[in-house]
Parts: sequence; C-alpha cells; structure tokens
Amino acid sequence: MAVYTDVAADELAAFLASYDIGELLSYKGIAEGVENSNFLLHTTAGSYFLTLYEKRVAVGDLPFFLGLMSHLAAHDIVCPQPVKTRDGKTLGVLAGRPAAIIDFLEGVWPRKPNVAHCAAVGEALAKLHLAGRDFPMKRANALSVKGWRPLFEQAAARADTVQHGLNAFLSAELDYLETRWPGDLPRGIIHADLFPDNALFVGESLSGLIDFYFACNDILAYDVAICLNAWCFEPDHSFNVTKARAFLNAYGKERPLSEAEQAALPLLARGAALRFLLTRLVDFLNVPPGALVKPKDPLEYVRKLRFHQSVNDIAGYGVAQTGLPA
Amino acid sequence: MAVYTDVAADELAAFLASYDIGELLSYKGIAEGVENSNFLLHTTAGSYFLTLYEKRVAVGDLPFFLGLMSHLAAHDIVCPQPVKTRDGKTLGVLAGRPAAIIDFLEGVWPRKPNVAHCAAVGEALAKLHLAGRDFPMKRANALSVKGWRPLFEQAAARADTVQHGLNAFLSAELDYLETRWPGDLPRGIIHADLFPDNALFVGESLSGLIDFYFACNDILAYDVAICLNAWCFEPDHSFNVTKARAFLNAYGKERPLSEAEQAALPLLARGAALRFLLTRLVDFLNVPPGALVKPKDPLEYVRKLRFHQSVNDIAGYGVAQTGLPA
Repeated sequence: MAVYTDVAADELAAFLASYDIGELLSYKGIAEGVENSNFLLHTTAGSYFLTLYEKRVAVGDLPFFLGLMSHLAAHDIVCPQPVKTRDGKTLGVLAGRPAAIIDFLEGVWPRKPNVAHCAAVGEALAKLHLAGRDFPMKRANALSVKGWRPLFEQAAARADTVQHGLNAFLSAELDYLETRWPGDLPRGIIHADLFPDNALFVGESLSGLIDFYFACNDILAYDVAICLNAWCFEPDHSFNVTKARAFLNAYGKERPLSEAEQAALPLLARGAALRFLLTRLVDFLNVPPGALVKPKDPLEYVRKLRFHQSVNDIAGYGVAQTGLPA
Repeated sequence: MAVYTDVAADELAAFLASYDIGELLSYKGIAEGVENSNFLLHTTAGSYFLTLYEKRVAVGDLPFFLGLMSHLAAHDIVCPQPVKTRDGKTLGVLAGRPAAIIDFLEGVWPRKPNVAHCAAVGEALAKLHLAGRDFPMKRANALSVKGWRPLFEQAAARADTVQHGLNAFLSAELDYLETRWPGDLPRGIIHADLFPDNALFVGESLSGLIDFYFACNDILAYDVAICLNAWCFEPDHSFNVTKARAFLNAYGKERPLSEAEQAALPLLARGAALRFLLTRLVDFLNVPPGALVKPKDPLEYVRKLRFHQSVNDIAGYGVAQTGLPA
C-alpha cells in the first residue's frame, strides 16, 4: 500500500505522447499494490492504469507478465490489457523505472466473498488455465516447493517468537511436503495469487481478474489449492465447505480435475497454506518498527494449514471424488 | 499519503443508495491527503471523491468546509462540490467516520510551477477572496499568529538538533512578529493552504482549487503571503521574482491590494514562512522511526524566512507599490 515513485506531469505527458489514448485529464496515486507504484489516469479517451515497476519486480519478467495479460485478453479472459504505443510496445521507461499503461477494469473486489463469488472465481480460474495452454513464454515459480526451505531458513531462528513451537511445526511440514510433492500432475500457466483483492465484480458478476505479477508455470491444481485457502475460510478461520463446493464445482465444469489432481488436493492445499504462511512470516519478522503498513498475520495460515492436515480426500472440501474406476 | 480506513463494498453500496449518482463501478484508495482517507469512485454517472474524515479533522468544522465548497462553487469558483443526498445532506457516516461524496475535478497539479501557473493561481485566489465575502459561516485560524507560540514550545527543546541556533532564530522571529502583527487589514475567507498540490490544471488552464480543510477567516493578504512562499521559490530555494510579479499582478487585477496590505506584505510573508516552518518542524521531530512517510524538510522554510527578512517593501516581490498618494 504505497506509491513509491511520484511522477511529474510533464514527464508523464511526454511518456503518454507515444500512446494513442487522448489527452491527460488527471492522475492519482493508488494506495494498492506493495510491489509497484500505481496511478489511475483519466484521459479524454477513458481510464487507464499506469504502473511503475519498482525494484522488487525483476525487469526480465515483465515481458512475461505483459505478454500473458495480452494473451489472456485475446482469449476472452477479462483482465487488464497492456496498451501498446504507436510503435507496438507495451513496456517503456518513466521516472527511471520500467512502466506500462494498462486498461483500467471497473469492478470492486469483494471484502466479504460469498458463495456466488466463489463459484464465479472457480469458473474464471479454470478458463484462465485453459486459455494459458498455448501461451508460449515460461516463468518458473520461485515460490513453489523448492522455494519454501530458503524462506523457512530466513524465519526459523525467530519463528518461536511469533508462536511457541512454530519452528518445529514448520520444519516437520516442510519435510513432509518436500518428500511427497507431486511431480506428474498437469502443469500450465497459473495465477498463483488469486485472492479476493485480485478479482473484481460489478454487482454479482465477475468483471475481471487482476495482478498477474506472481503468474508462472506450475501445477494447475496448485492454483486451485491456493484459491481454497484464499476464498473458502471465514474471518474466524473456519472452513466454509459450501463455498469450497461452489468453487470446485464451478472449476470442474470448465476443466474437470483428473483423479490424480483430486487425490492430491489436500496435499496441494497444505503446500499453498505453507507458502503464504512462510512469506507472511518473513514479512512479519522484517517489518521496520513504526512502519505504517501493518503486516498480514502469518498465524492465520497456521490455522488453515492445520485444517488441511485433517483432510483426507477431496470429500473434505465438499465434493465427491469423480471419475473413479467403476 | 495514506488510506487509514478501508471500506467494504456492501457498506459503500448502502451509503451510496441515499445519493442519486448511479451504480458503483469501482473505488480505489488514493495515496494523497494525510488527514483523511480518500477514494476515487467510478459510478455509472461519472467520477466522484469519497472522503472519510479521520480523527485529526474536527467534526464540528465539517459543515464549514462543505458549506464553503458549495458556496464557492455557486459563485463560479471551480472547486470540488459536495454532492447532496436525496434528503439534501452533504455529510453522512461510513465505516464509523464522517463521510462525504464530492465531485471529482479533473486536472493535474503542477510539480514544477511556471509563470503561467503562478498568474492563474493569483487570479483564482483573488476571485476566491471576493466570492467568500458573503459566506455566512466563520472559522478561526488556529494556525495564525496566536497559534505559533504553542507550536514553538512543542519544538523548542529539540530545535537545535535540527539546525544549530534554530531555537534562538525562531524565538526572535516569534517575538518580532507577535508585536507587529497587523490587526486592521481586510479579513475574510482564506484558503490558507494553496500550495501547488492544491491547484489543478488541464493543460495550461486552471481547472480547480482543492483541499479546503485549512480554510478559515483571517487576513486576506496573509493568504497572498502564503502563496508567495508556496509558488515563487525555486527547488534551490531561490526566490523567483518573475513568478511573484505574475502572481501579484494577476491577483491585483481582480482584487487590488490596499496600501496597507502592500506595506504589510513582507511581514505577512515572514509570518507565513514561520507558520509552515513550525508545523513542519513539529512533524519532523515527531515522525515515528521507520515511518514510510518522509516528513517535509523544515529547513526549506528557514531559508524562505531569511529571504523575507531581507525584503523591505513590495518592490522586493517584483511589483511597484501602487495607490500611493500623488
């Protein structure tokens, strides 16, 4: 939640001159996005996002992210589409940073997701996975199973200051997941961060998916598992099986999960919970004193992880296993 | 630069139901305004600001601010106009805070003000002073001469940690201004904070004045003196007499300064410099360690104040004194 870089009006006007999006009327820094500086622009042609990519985003990954958004938009996935300059470029430089102009999507993210939201997200995620099949670029997931132990090692020494016994809990879970993580499930483009604040709705209808800056190639069902964590728990951390059923059924209508994917779902959900637990824990332990941005609570994910540890099969998420041999 | 309060979509929808501004399409927290939480709304009817008033704004002052904006807008001063509910109210409650919907003004504030900007602001300030004459409400200026000594006392003990000798410098200036501050100059509604980030332009044209949350009743020429400080110094703190001349001439065309006002201008400019020096110094000394918001440099105003101390009469600001007895 920060604008890291301000932009002078004359610099911005010069930058916009290479685009065909009308005259600048206003621009406002947006208090969203911890990785980048985002501005909402009004021009005589409409509304746009201006994103300046700050240091935490690898410049080399930007063609993947922008290319993916263009690819998905061309495959009828509603997502922000990078605007091209008259020379056909989607990436420029502004205020010394890589910068892009992106279509502004109207919509409101659901602060209190309901069953209808979960179903809409399930359908959209499956369509995203299908649309990603012929996207030619690749990006490894730095936050998949191989990335977790380095995160654990950053946090291990101080983990028990956050919760007694957390170090041992994380260590055991990591050992468990590393030895069992599946290597043969269908892979493809995943969003990898499809939390409620990255899904926009107008009224009850999904109006778009946003924030593709964690997108990568990984196990498709791992993306499903991330959404189970992100959408199907209540504010008191209880699991809402009605929401999970709605989400999984809507996903399965568009892209049925294979038997192997269904069987792996509890394990993948444990992995997804551990991934967010670890990144939140590292952030929590490294927040500067007095910082205005309150770090997200890592312990929320301890509770979610314990829940997934108790799930034996996909029935624990509210749906019957399908496609079993008769 | 912060959104202090987030707003849930369903709460916002319920709040908007009492207004006649269409259906909500999106809302984004804006990284501007240190006193309030501001959101840019898009509805089917257009763009609006939603402001939640945080604790630092006295609730009792809100009818003055909102009433003033309505009054000025009715007198052809382009400024954000509070939108009324169907019941005719401009102030409601959202997320536990006083809240208002305000017209969104297009425009960009000048990061590098030029002579044309200064002239436009001079004209607009004079028109604002004239339009304020028949506004019936009153609000004292807590940051005029009587408010400076309490600020000084908050900062005095640590002032020399910021600059050697600053305590004595401030103390002497305060003594000087308190004994000479004029009591008989024309008074009225002043903006009191008309810095470049509160003046919007589309191209070269002023499109509106914003942020009336310091507006009050005080000496009109004191507002002129604030603008001399805010608009007529270069980034290297040198005084740009061409900008000052353009500003003062444009102001004087709409509302000629009286002889007494002209004679008092150097003194008023010293007072304005001291006011911003003191509030910045207090903020600077009280910023929490590690805070993301960098406090503004108080020493910029030491340099400005020293400049005004060297000015004997309005000719020092680039214009000949007018209206002297023949």
